[in-house]
Amino acid sequence: MDGTYKDMIAFHGHSCPGLAIGYRMTKAALDFLSGLRSKDEELVAIVENNACGVDALQYISGCTFGKGNLIFKDYGKQVYTLYDRKTKRGVRVCFMNRAVPQGLRNDRKKFIDWLLSVPDEEIISLKEVRIDEPEPARIMKSAECAFCGERVMETRVREINGKPVCIPCAEKMQ
Amino acid sequence: MDGTYKDMIAFHGHSCPGLAIGYRMTKAALDFLSGLRSKDEELVAIVENNACGVDALQYISGCTFGKGNLIFKDYGKQVYTLYDRKTKRGVRVCFMNRAVPQGLRNDRKKFIDWLLSVPDEEIISLKEVRIDEPEPARIMKSAECAFCGERVMETRVREINGKPVCIPCAEKMQ
Repeated sequence: MDGTYKDMIAFHGHSCPGLAIGYRMTKAALDFLSGLRSKDEELVAIVENNACGVDALQYISGCTFGKGNLIFKDYGKQVYTLYDRKTKRGVRVCFMNRAVPQGLRNDRKKFIDWLLSVPDEEIISLKEVRIDEPEPARIMKSAECAFCGERVMETRVREINGKPVCIPCAEKMQ
Repeated sequence: MDGTYKDMIAFHGHSCPGLAIGYRMTKAALDFLSGLRSKDEELVAIVENNACGVDALQYISGCTFGKGNLIFKDYGKQVYTLYDRKTKRGVRVCFMNRAVPQGLRNDRKKFIDWLLSVPDEEIISLKEVRIDEPEPARIMKSAECAFCGERVMETRVREINGKPVCIPCAEKMQ
């Protein structure tokens, strides 16, 4: 287990099989693309679940919730699609659940060790895909809520009696 | 700038004012609560935007997208609410945008330095709040999609002709 893996555990908060799965999926996808972590929005990830593994994806790929290059589709599937804006290449990785030997899940430590040592092709189904390039994140102007006085992104303002109102204030008034 | 801050920049991918704002908001909220990072789901954060600062929140508080203790409400506001499951205390922090001296935003480096050195009370509005305790994340059973054969969380399965189908397959068939 290298330093990066340990730092990733520290980010997630604990070690678990889900994190190891996300790590393997992300590494496989990155290896297929440029191998580089996304400093800004060079890469985009579309994740089809919001389980532990996505913290591995955030940490390893640099596709993070706060940068806007992490797109969540609530499909409940162990699938990530990574797209490289520079090369316009996309790759879809899926964790092959049925590859896990029976009974192994009962021993958490052994399961993690296995997940970190089994060859890619036994646990990862990978294919190149063409996808429409996702829109980059945009910085929006702000307005001031006429009721609480707090700042609100212009595109999230509601109008009540001709005044700009934030969503929480608007909902309180209903 | 201490080691943690540098590691947080490495996680986000770059240094920016938004990250510094999220750092100050998160630190202020954590200081009000136990001060401890969330290894598992001890803390929950409700964030009212998905901008850069949320990466600081993930990194510093341990409320991460993959652990399920990061709840996103798309209100476009610089507001985080953190809740401690142990003490049942909640705190709401809001960044006071109007405290930023005019013109400072034009000098990115100076703006970041200012954000990291100005006292809490000048930039953070903080109050204790009572909120309903958010549900912890749950692990769901899985089914197999009758079309692609991939695993799907049971609660995301659609039924077509009496067969379990994942959402992407179901959408392709429409």
